[in-house]
Amino acid sequence: MKTYRHKVIVHWGDTDPASIVFYPNYFAWFDQSTLLLFESVGLGWNTLQEKYGVPGMPIVEAKSRFLAPCRFRDEIVVESSVTQWHEKTLEVSHTVLNGATRAVEGYEIRVWCKLDPDRPGRLKSFAMPPEIRAAFE
Amino acid sequence: MKTYRHKVIVHWGDTDPASIVFYPNYFAWFDQSTLLLFESVGLGWNTLQEKYGVPGMPIVEAKSRFLAPCRFRDEIVVESSVTQWHEKTLEVSHTVLNGATRAVEGYEIRVWCKLDPDRPGRLKSFAMPPEIRAAFE
Amino acid sequence: MKTYRHKVIVHWGDTDPASIVFYPNYFAWFDQSTLLLFESVGLGWNTLQEKYGVPGMPIVEAKSRFLAPCRFRDEIVVESSVTQWHEKTLEVSHTVLNGATRAVEGYEIRVWCKLDPDRPGRLKSFAMPPEIRAAFE
Amino acid sequence: MKTYRHKVIVHWGDTDPASIVFYPNYFAWFDQSTLLLFESVGLGWNTLQEKYGVPGMPIVEAKSRFLAPCRFRDEIVVESSVTQWHEKTLEVSHTVLNGATRAVEGYEIRVWCKLDPDRPGRLKSFAMPPEIRAAFE
Repeated sequence: MKTYRHKVIVHWGDTDPASIVFYPNYFAWFDQSTLLLFESVGLGWNTLQEKYGVPGMPIVEAKSRFLAPCRFRDEIVVESSVTQWHEKTLEVSHTVLNGATRAVEGYEIRVWCKLDPDRPGRLKSFAMPPEIRAAFE
Repeated sequence: MKTYRHKVIVHWGDTDPASIVFYPNYFAWFDQSTLLLFESVGLGWNTLQEKYGVPGMPIVEAKSRFLAPCRFRDEIVVESSVTQWHEKTLEVSHTVLNGATRAVEGYEIRVWCKLDPDRPGRLKSFAMPPEIRAAFE
Repeated sequence: MKTYRHKVIVHWGDTDPASIVFYPNYFAWFDQSTLLLFESVGLGWNTLQEKYGVPGMPIVEAKSRFLAPCRFRDEIVVESSVTQWHEKTLEVSHTVLNGATRAVEGYEIRVWCKLDPDRPGRLKSFAMPPEIRAAFE
Repeated sequence: MKTYRHKVIVHWGDTDPASIVFYPNYFAWFDQSTLLLFESVGLGWNTLQEKYGVPGMPIVEAKSRFLAPCRFRDEIVVESSVTQWHEKTLEVSHTVLNGATRAVEGYEIRVWCKLDPDRPGRLKSFAMPPEIRAAFE
């Protein structure tokens, strides 16, 4: 399975008065990493829209465990891969490595959806075409 | 001229390792305050779109001077009003009061624009209708 | 058990090209709401530091399920309360209500800790004094 | 004079419902770029603290003009250099290039300061030692 490694520098504005990363930023980096992972297999958000009418894959669940703090000027790596496939959803797992330290681990569950033909302006989930999974293998 | 007073609590995540507000947040509060000012005179962004085909007023210039730091748990007020009117642009001035202290002062210049009839997907500036200025008086 | 209701306006900068809240912002609002909940029972972060030598309660786990989108100009309420007590950790649960709609639900697990006497600059978890739990009852 | 080129990918969460960068993010990138510029000449914030007792250089003024929008997935470059030297302050100018387009230009004015010996916990500005300027030449 394809794994994407997303390098992130921890900047001043990412940290809080305790001089460690303010935790919602990890989820912003997860989101970035998921999009970069999809893009790396030719499935960027713009491509999903143009080819499948899928306006990005909305998030339905996210979780993270914080094992060790990251600090200003740390250079971290977010390792991301799809770890579960369901009919209409998938799970992307993320691990943040800070040098040799496993700092954070978490996942996002995202859903394949399109505009609902019966309710203008609303989204509806659909079964993912098999080529999506195949692209990551 | 209408003045809007926007109360903001300085939260933990708004501050940096020096325990003061990370400065780009002041511009985010300026942006919020401009939109609330417009909304307070019946010209919310959604109204501008529906009534005038104006998708919000994009920013063309912003400046701020930082006179005194604001800290975690300060409750500040952003005072905002339109201070200059031009044919196609206006200037919104903002003052951040932290109790009796004038902490920050700045402005934004924003432009009245619509979709360009000659270039699909691009915006073009137009003269503001006189009722826009009148709404603030 | 004490419940805190934290009102939040969804601002332009909180939303993404799909015109819905960019999900890490919900965790930022959870963080704000936890601190406001503690403050509402007399246990603000500054008080924890002064009275107990506890520099805020670091997060060790956070999870959220996203049930319905929130949009620009929605006025939402984050309802927060402590839902589990352990010797050294507690769980704060958060529900985001968007009018009558339950939009988001999640939790944070946070740990009671102080500077480690044996390792300068590092934190160590300790048992919470019983008055902490009592303050929420 | 030393110029630093800071590459930034515009991520989904950096953009707004108009699908362009939410403008306070440019100032966050300016801040990052200033710190990286200083670091590139051996004057990282941690070094300033250890060697000079200078806890970073606080901002006293920032301005930006927005010439062209940047969008999701644009890869931009922030070019930064010190453009004015005064006794106690300096000006860092920033230009954002989006491919061949000059998208944003602005500056920050920052001040050299240390803990005030007469007022505990407050900062006071001091004359910069000549080696600071020399480091950028």
